[in-house]
Parts: sequence; C-alpha cells; structure tokens
Amino acid sequence: MSETGVKLFGKLESPFVLRVELALKLKGVEYEYVYGPLPDVIARELKNNIVNEKDPVLIHDGKPIAESLVIIEYIDEIWKGTGRSILPTDPYERAVARFLAKYADDKLMADIIGVYLKVGKEQKKSLELMKTKQRVFGNALKGKKFFGGDCIGYLDIVLGIIPYWIQAIKQVSDVKEDEVEDDVDVAHLRVWSRNFLSLEFVKDKLPPFEKLIEMLKKAKGNINIQAVCH
Amino acid sequence: MSETGVKLFGKLESPFVLRVELALKLKGVEYEYVYGPLPDVIARELKNNIVNEKDPVLIHDGKPIAESLVIIEYIDEIWKGTGRSILPTDPYERAVARFLAKYADDKLMADIIGVYLKVGKEQKKSLELMKTKQRVFGNALKGKKFFGGDCIGYLDIVLGIIPYWIQAIKQVSDVKEDEVEDDVDVAHLRVWSRNFLSLEFVKDKLPPFEKLIEMLKKAKGNINIQAVCH
Repeated sequence: MSETGVKLFGKLESPFVLRVELALKLKGVEYEYVYGPLPDVIARELKNNIVNEKDPVLIHDGKPIAESLVIIEYIDEIWKGTGRSILPTDPYERAVARFLAKYADDKLMADIIGVYLKVGKEQKKSLELMKTKQRVFGNALKGKKFFGGDCIGYLDIVLGIIPYWIQAIKQVSDVKEDEVEDDVDVAHLRVWSRNFLSLEFVKDKLPPFEKLIEMLKKAKGNINIQAVCH
Repeated sequence: MSETGVKLFGKLESPFVLRVELALKLKGVEYEYVYGPLPDVIARELKNNIVNEKDPVLIHDGKPIAESLVIIEYIDEIWKGTGRSILPTDPYERAVARFLAKYADDKLMADIIGVYLKVGKEQKKSLELMKTKQRVFGNALKGKKFFGGDCIGYLDIVLGIIPYWIQAIKQVSDVKEDEVEDDVDVAHLRVWSRNFLSLEFVKDKLPPFEKLIEMLKKAKGNINIQAVCH
C-alpha cells in the first residue's frame, strides 16, 4: 500500500460512502472511486489495525482510514488550506455538530431501520422514535437554510441523504402514508432536504431512486442494524 | 445557564466521567465537579437540543456539551494554547485515534458488559470477542509506553480505566480465572495499564476498587448495554 493519491472504496448505494464523496468534492480533492470489495491486501491490514473492513474506506498515500465521520474529519484537516472548512470553526458549534452526527448514526439510523424491517406495533414505535429525533435536528436547523448556514457544511453532508433514504424505505415498508407525514414543526426540515437534494453536486451523486428501492426490496430480510450503521 | 466557568456533572464511578476529568486535568483547567443528577433547567435544555441527559455533561460558560469523546475534543480545542495537545497532532494519527476510541465505545464496551451480564456460552463468546479487541488495541500500542508516546494522550485517557473496570467485572461475574487470562501477545497492554493506573493524577481519581465492586454487584440486573455506553 505505498501508492500515492486518494482512493475511495465502497458501494454506490451507501449513504455513508456518499458522505465521504461529498466531503472530497467540497474540498475539491481529486480521487478515484472504486466500486466493490476491498483488495485483499488492504482488508488484511485493516483487520490487524483499524479493524473495519466495511465501506467506506479511504486510502490516502497508501494509508487506510475507515468510518465515514472519522474520514470526513480527516479530509477537513488534511486539506485545511483548500476551500471552506467542512466542520464549523467555532469549538462549541463543532462539539454540537459532532454530537448530532454521532446521535444520527447511533440512534436515528436504528429507528429508520426499524421502520424498514419491523412490522405492526414495533414498526409504529420506530416511526414515533424517528419523529422525535427529527424534531431534535429541526431545532438545530431552525432559522438557517443549511446546517452550515448559507452554504452546506458537516451536518448537511452527514444528514443530507437520510430523507432520500427515508422516502425509499417508506415505499418498501408497509406503513401508511398518513402515518409517515412529518410534523408541522419540522416542515422546515423538508425545505432543507429539498434544497440539499437539488444541489447539482449532490444530484450527480445520488443513486437513482428506482435502483435504491430495488436494492432495498432485495436486501429486506438479509439486513440488520449492525450491518447498516458504519 | 449564563454562569461562567467550567462544571462537570456525572457519577464518580463512571469511566466516561473520569475520561473528562483527566482531560481537564491534562490541560490544567479549573473546574467544579458536581456529583449527581443534572439540575432541571439544564436537563430541559439538553433534551431540546443536544438530547443526552446522561452523564458526563460539561457546562462551559453556560453552554452544555454531552458525550465524553465529544467533550474531550472540545476541551482540547478550546484550551489549545494550554499544555500539550490531547489528540495526536498528525491528521492520520488523529484519525486512527478517533477510530479506535469509537471502536472501544461501540464494540469493546458491549463485550465487557457481555462478560458482566451474560452467563454460560454467551458469556464465553463475549470473553472471546473482548480478547480479539484487546489484540487490536495491543497492535496500536506496540513499541510505545503510552498510546500518546512517552506521555499519555487521547487514547490513554479514553481507554485507560477500562482494564480497572474489567478487573472489577471479573470479580462479580462467574468466569473462571484461567479463562480470563490475557493472551501473551497483549502482555504489553498489562504493562501499559499498570503504568497508567499508577500515575498520581490518575490514582487520585480512581473510584476505590471495593466501592466499584459493591456498585457493580448492586447494579447487576438493573443495567443494560445502552445505559452504560455514553
């Protein structure tokens, strides 16, 4: 692994891989995107050191980094002089952003998967929990166009694709449409989501909606929370 | 919450609270430690914004921050000019440290709790998983006195108290002593742990071993993984 340059390994449909791609694009970093499994030599090294063999994995100058949130911070630090900072520059705002990103991955993702995989009462419970968490993100956004302010930043690329996934999951789950309607007090989250998903540089990278639904239908039954959150 | 200064809320026995105390001490920050539950006014604000009402919570100049790893990064950034950096200064080393800290909290803690709460085959499985993860941390330490090098750093304060907890958990679980013996290839982790726990500024802050065992005995049955990892 002595090759120079930047390589990103991961599946096209993964929201975690997309986060990293958007971070690289925000910083204007040239990279090679490699679809599919990691080469054996890299997988072995990861197993002994940074453990995670799941995507996304970024290789920079021959060194591997795993976990999407860790990779985004790395990109922001290593290309500090290039473009705007991805994370907020104020230490308190950074702390809140880090907290909310972790909250999304640790808690919100589990509820989304619950809506996707569970049925009946358990599914309704996941739906309610998901809505509670949406209100928290709604509070963090209030009064701003993007989480990053007028321009997109860390929380936008971390959270931005989630509503797109939720829409797809609604279609493959058996929840009724009137049950999934967002609360009025997070209506501004819908506006944010529309603004984010209509940005050219995001649109270019979104997996086609029909492909996502097809993939989710196929995966149902073979997926669990641990396999999705990384 | 307009008060100035630094306050730390949390339980004395929590390894997550201790991490934050050690970070404050490393930076030489004066703080007030408040044992026990959060005041109502702060708990309400957290619920609407940064969500987590569990300890540790740090209040700095009236603003709350939750999650031990997030708080440590905040301390390192806000008191940048004071003392040594807690996180490694090299971006790649920072990324690896962040990955391993997350790995400890997301994966290792679950295995430790498994050894504590499970019995029979399930417990043995947790024990094996715990040992696998110890080898990963052993690889990261190899050749160094502390994870931070000659002096302690981020991963030392994040991981340092874990072996102390494991020792206590072994005593309240029913695993046999020969089953819990560490592998020869992580013997250097034992040396690191001894070095870390014998540092005066750590020793001062450790909950007395007998108190910890007493607390663990009482809590058994009322505890679950989610309640412990934060």
